[in-house]
Amino acid sequence: MNRTVYLDNFATTKPAEEVLEGMLPYFREIFGNALSPYDLGQRAREAVEEARVEVAELIKAKPQEIIFTSGGTESNNMAIVGLAKANKKKGNHVIVSTVEHHSITNPARHLEREGFEVTFLPVDRYGVIDLNFLERALREDTVLVSVQLANPEVGTIQPVKEVVRLAKRVGALVHTDAVAAIPQMKVDVDDLGVDALSLSAHLFYGPKGAGALYIRKGVRVQPIIYGGIQEGGRRGGTENVPAIVGMGIAARLLRQNLPTMVPKMQALRDRLIKGLLERIPNLHLTGHPEKRLPGHASFIVEFVEGEAMLLMLAFKGIYTSSGSTCTSKALKASPVLSSMGYPAHLIQGSILFVLSKDTQEEDIDYVLNTMPEVVERLRELSPFKEGWKDMEKWEKATCPHH
Amino acid sequence: MNRTVYLDNFATTKPAEEVLEGMLPYFREIFGNALSPYDLGQRAREAVEEARVEVAELIKAKPQEIIFTSGGTESNNMAIVGLAKANKKKGNHVIVSTVEHHSITNPARHLEREGFEVTFLPVDRYGVIDLNFLERALREDTVLVSVQLANPEVGTIQPVKEVVRLAKRVGALVHTDAVAAIPQMKVDVDDLGVDALSLSAHLFYGPKGAGALYIRKGVRVQPIIYGGIQEGGRRGGTENVPAIVGMGIAARLLRQNLPTMVPKMQALRDRLIKGLLERIPNLHLTGHPEKRLPGHASFIVEFVEGEAMLLMLAFKGIYTSSGSTCTSKALKASPVLSSMGYPAHLIQGSILFVLSKDTQEEDIDYVLNTMPEVVERLRELSPFKEGWKDMEKWEKATCPHH
Repeated sequence: MNRTVYLDNFATTKPAEEVLEGMLPYFREIFGNALSPYDLGQRAREAVEEARVEVAELIKAKPQEIIFTSGGTESNNMAIVGLAKANKKKGNHVIVSTVEHHSITNPARHLEREGFEVTFLPVDRYGVIDLNFLERALREDTVLVSVQLANPEVGTIQPVKEVVRLAKRVGALVHTDAVAAIPQMKVDVDDLGVDALSLSAHLFYGPKGAGALYIRKGVRVQPIIYGGIQEGGRRGGTENVPAIVGMGIAARLLRQNLPTMVPKMQALRDRLIKGLLERIPNLHLTGHPEKRLPGHASFIVEFVEGEAMLLMLAFKGIYTSSGSTCTSKALKASPVLSSMGYPAHLIQGSILFVLSKDTQEEDIDYVLNTMPEVVERLRELSPFKEGWKDMEKWEKATCPHH
Repeated sequence: MNRTVYLDNFATTKPAEEVLEGMLPYFREIFGNALSPYDLGQRAREAVEEARVEVAELIKAKPQEIIFTSGGTESNNMAIVGLAKANKKKGNHVIVSTVEHHSITNPARHLEREGFEVTFLPVDRYGVIDLNFLERALREDTVLVSVQLANPEVGTIQPVKEVVRLAKRVGALVHTDAVAAIPQMKVDVDDLGVDALSLSAHLFYGPKGAGALYIRKGVRVQPIIYGGIQEGGRRGGTENVPAIVGMGIAARLLRQNLPTMVPKMQALRDRLIKGLLERIPNLHLTGHPEKRLPGHASFIVEFVEGEAMLLMLAFKGIYTSSGSTCTSKALKASPVLSSMGYPAHLIQGSILFVLSKDTQEEDIDYVLNTMPEVVERLRELSPFKEGWKDMEKWEKATCPHH
């Protein structure tokens, strides 16, 4: 029998019912503008500031260090462009890793067009950034280094504390995109030592349209959206009160649930990885085998076309993804897996499972029982099977990474 | 007896219940990422594209000319920065009026810091832009002119068609901030002839966190938020599906209701203006007496402190504003009224009423019965009364505008 097993929780999560219920009064009764001086506005203001406290608490920051944005992408853009431009007196050199989300690499390329010099930091076969390369790349005029806390496509956790240690030698600021890490890891900005950190509510059971950028007290940042006095003049625009309230509730729930959620998630994830590797031949785990997010499993399935696999799994009620949802439609090979050395024909067969707080043992069993036959069927149908095998042989002979 | 009369509809409107009801399924059942290829994503995608059709239809544009943003402020920022930078081969001169919203003037100042030259277009005592000045200010290297369709603080409708006619002579692009106009005016982008136009959902009974930027087909614009392939690569970030759906419904409702709403609004507004001018001495209408939004009434109340007046009215259940909500807390004199020639001490007593689709005759009567005694009481209490009178005499003698 079909069940619905949603394991695409880095595409988006289902908002918690408590989050939605908490938002509703701010659409109806307390619909005021949070800057209006009368009660209807002030109650909205108080709700925004309570949410700011919750988001700050989640990452052990101070409330005044939190800027609300429209989402993780805006937070990342503001971090890259806003920190580089506000501090360009120090220099015009920026370092980002090759496995960053497009909301980091594309603003970085924008900075290049505006006269900045950007160094792209390579990774090893597990997706871990090359710290030796970083050490050599850092210069007196390096103004900013941005390295994700965890990679959403392969789950690898990056050595951000080491990045901070190296960057501080030359006085560079460090930003980390924690959008994928936050839902599955305890995060402490002081322990990490970062100057800036991005969050997105809809990846931790909050609403779409709400994000935050942590900026350490005293660090200068330039807005990317100019307007009124909202967010201390650093982000204009009428506060999206219901979404911010939802993000606050989601942050509080996550903080409360994380300690019990993580071990449960990890056990289920381990069961998924072990079970699939046993049941499906020519299946390869991607990302780091240990230093990875506890609820993340990613693979390359040889000799299948990923899109067909996703749709066939979805037909069976299993929702998952082949990589970054933001680029999957562009039909280009994942830059993350490319950076890790995988050839294009293997990347075609990538798949990733991201567990949620609600994932059950029965969900994992259903995947273990369903996916092997889906893969088998696709491999039978695939006209490219032999061709791909040949390509793989060719790649093995020519590609030192693999 | 107290009633609640919300007349601060340019701070924000109360979302229509139909809008909220339409959004709810996209928080619950259809929570997927609109880029995910499976059904849960595709249903979200379809909803986004339906909303795009509705928003396009509202302003007589084509769906592919609509970019969804996080709100009017982001739309305005993208228009100013994105159009100027994408077309800077033509030149680096930009013209904006002095009575634009901060989400126009502040990005314009940002452009100045990045090497653009910005001319600020003055207005007359009614807040109407100076077309003769514009004609002289336009140059071969003018890349962009931005003039609002209607002013949110004083309700004045600007001669945008004339702006377009003049700007086209030198091949400059024209953007109009229609955030305040949309809720109260029929808008047709082809009739106006503009190249770009900004909208904000929460001003027409839609949700906060949703806006749109119309960009005429063929006009180049640079993103301000880089990321994935969303919005044709022009605005990154996971689509805020519920908010976009809400904006679509709000656009459809507005298009349907506008023909009956406008005459009703205008009659109530005229009754409000006439009634208050009769009942309150030393009260002055601001903005253009005829060329103004049908649901907008704005005044200067001499010898009162505006903030106290707003709070006392709110205590009586009447919600209104003294100017732009985004700046009111900054306690600076309104740049709009300053540009129109009003001295600071008069601007202190500014107040504006913005009607909604739901405003009733009884609401207007309640204001007419309540406000005169509030003003009288404040004038009795005011320690500045005599001083302000003296200042006004002084201003009258020195200020040619007034």
